Amino acid sequence: MTLQTAERPGLKDVAVTSTLIGDVNGAEGSFHYRGIDAIALATSRSFEDVWFLFVEGRLPQPDESATFAARTAALRMPPPEIHEVLPGIARSGCTVPAGLRAALSMLPAQPMWDAPTASRKADSLRVSAMTPTILAALHRLRLGLDPISPRADLSMSANWLYMITGQEPSKSVSLAAEQGFIMAIEHGFNASTFTARIAASAGADIVSAVVAAIGTFSGPLHGGAPGRALEVLDLIGTADNIEPWVRDCIARGERVMGFGHAVYQTTDPRARMLKAIALELHEQRPSEFIDFAITVEQRVTELLAELKPGRGLHANAEFYAGVVMEQCGVPREMFTPSSMCGRVIGWCANAVEQSEDRKIIRPIARYVGPMPGKPAS
Amino acid sequence: MTLQTAERPGLKDVAVTSTLIGDVNGAEGSFHYRGIDAIALATSRSFEDVWFLFVEGRLPQPDESATFAARTAALRMPPPEIHEVLPGIARSGCTVPAGLRAALSMLPAQPMWDAPTASRKADSLRVSAMTPTILAALHRLRLGLDPISPRADLSMSANWLYMITGQEPSKSVSLAAEQGFIMAIEHGFNASTFTARIAASAGADIVSAVVAAIGTFSGPLHGGAPGRALEVLDLIGTADNIEPWVRDCIARGERVMGFGHAVYQTTDPRARMLKAIALELHEQRPSEFIDFAITVEQRVTELLAELKPGRGLHANAEFYAGVVMEQCGVPREMFTPSSMCGRVIGWCANAVEQSEDRKIIRPIARYVGPMPGKPAS
Repeated sequence: MTLQTAERPGLKDVAVTSTLIGDVNGAEGSFHYRGIDAIALATSRSFEDVWFLFVEGRLPQPDESATFAARTAALRMPPPEIHEVLPGIARSGCTVPAGLRAALSMLPAQPMWDAPTASRKADSLRVSAMTPTILAALHRLRLGLDPISPRADLSMSANWLYMITGQEPSKSVSLAAEQGFIMAIEHGFNASTFTARIAASAGADIVSAVVAAIGTFSGPLHGGAPGRALEVLDLIGTADNIEPWVRDCIARGERVMGFGHAVYQTTDPRARMLKAIALELHEQRPSEFIDFAITVEQRVTELLAELKPGRGLHANAEFYAGVVMEQCGVPREMFTPSSMCGRVIGWCANAVEQSEDRKIIRPIARYVGPMPGKPAS
Repeated sequence: MTLQTAERPGLKDVAVTSTLIGDVNGAEGSFHYRGIDAIALATSRSFEDVWFLFVEGRLPQPDESATFAARTAALRMPPPEIHEVLPGIARSGCTVPAGLRAALSMLPAQPMWDAPTASRKADSLRVSAMTPTILAALHRLRLGLDPISPRADLSMSANWLYMITGQEPSKSVSLAAEQGFIMAIEHGFNASTFTARIAASAGADIVSAVVAAIGTFSGPLHGGAPGRALEVLDLIGTADNIEPWVRDCIARGERVMGFGHAVYQTTDPRARMLKAIALELHEQRPSEFIDFAITVEQRVTELLAELKPGRGLHANAEFYAGVVMEQCGVPREMFTPSSMCGRVIGWCANAVEQSEDRKIIRPIARYVGPMPGKPAS
């Protein structure tokens, strides 16, 4: 009856739940949200429309689209009692994601099992809508700057860049960021999503589920990578250093950050899309930085094909996400927080879906130590 | 290769990991910590000794025992930058456990995979040692009172009661609380422990693991029950109301809170022990409240045997934990926080053990919705 640990390391390939939210096709190099190709959504729909898709299970009609965008824009400001604590959180010196976790922790929300569907959705919209505001405020407070209040007349992505920099972004930059956010919402059943679902399965509220997910997302195996991927560009520095740097890295037995993915055996569709966005931004406003990033990507891919044959190592989503964010004027400290602004939509949808199950996820651990019987010595 | 969801609802009986920390024997009605009967530990050892057992994997020698108690007592005060934010957290109106989560979120800790064992242990001691201080401070701040600084000359349990009430407890009360804390440290592989391990498996730091666990613990299926168990005593009110109240409760198809347990087919060993503690307290200082609780327990057990034959429904740990905590002068708002003061030791030990695996726990979800192919319509 009991499966032994050795057979299920890390629960690999064990289905713990069923979902209607989305899936990844690693062999084909595609992923979808509720049966609709995610890249198609990113190129044809607003972030708010895709958010609606996650919450309601279908795309909005035009009137619903406008109503939903206005409704969520009105929810961007955290309640005053939380806003008031943000300077103290920033002064503590914690990272921006840790500060988000602290701030959201204080937000009241109904335990999901007891709550009607409408209230669960309302809680999840509040958490998702105020996440960018809290993140941007903490970033500015850490720099000794005043937080910038959200503007309800801007799209989610334009407002995000505005709250960080104080400047309203250009249309092309705002669109680039928006497409990035859409692709960040969900990606299969990753560890942070799973954490959110475990908390939800115990009947916790949406805040507890999201706060749990933030912690997992902050683990080095997850999140945080766009910044590390760009560090590779810094370390390489110049085009003629690409080859010696990569050979040296492989000789030391290290991974080249920003290349390779656990699921995709072909190129990561997010990387393809983000590269196209980077090229588009480059066309609008030529950038040496993007030029260099593309040169590095091409040369590193060739070198990895030679040094790690048959492994199919390509630039992953983090690599070009970093490039696009840098070009959009997002400071590196805010790369992972940017991903969270999209991903929080996915966490909420997963937590709500799991809560509908009304069944606790409770596996067992196999005790392998000495057995009781001895007195406490 | 892939197990289908239908076969593994809630991962029941699936072993996701191996552990040396402890286990529950539901048929026998016993549980142990690292191979030593937990009840035997509660009656023969200090809380700090059992804490040492969780951290080091063995009981301390007498000199180690004193050193460890002094070392952890010195870690009780949170750093000033967190202490400073506590009034703001309390003003937000959030619950005490939510406030703990907010406060701990700000604490820096090393991602566990990169950290040497000594540093992982040091981080886990800090988190565990300051948890009671933060909880007690938030409770008092919510009441408009000044927090009481921890006293390093008191045991963990005496200091806990002192920080809540401002009064140093009697020896017998302090011992009762201490035994309760020891039994709260861990209990098999529960949902909050599992959440902590998921976060740790993604390489997160100990703070992220504990914060994730707190959220799950706050779910209605978990934690929070000692308060609800005592509400039963309030609702029944008088001895002659026990029978009509229970019959009415069962007729409405409701559970009697404080009775029954998912794992134990016999009496819960924690309930037996806590009842003995309650009787001991009663002997020291006769209490109508304990008298009434015991009357209710006996009569409800008889009625449940009649109304739900063959189910073996007995008072669970929450019932007598509530009785003991009430008698120790712990306010009801602090029942669940009290459990957390013990449980945090278990979460930390589990998170550290999981991090040693250096393998992400990443199951899959079975996508059961429409397949892609349709354009975004």
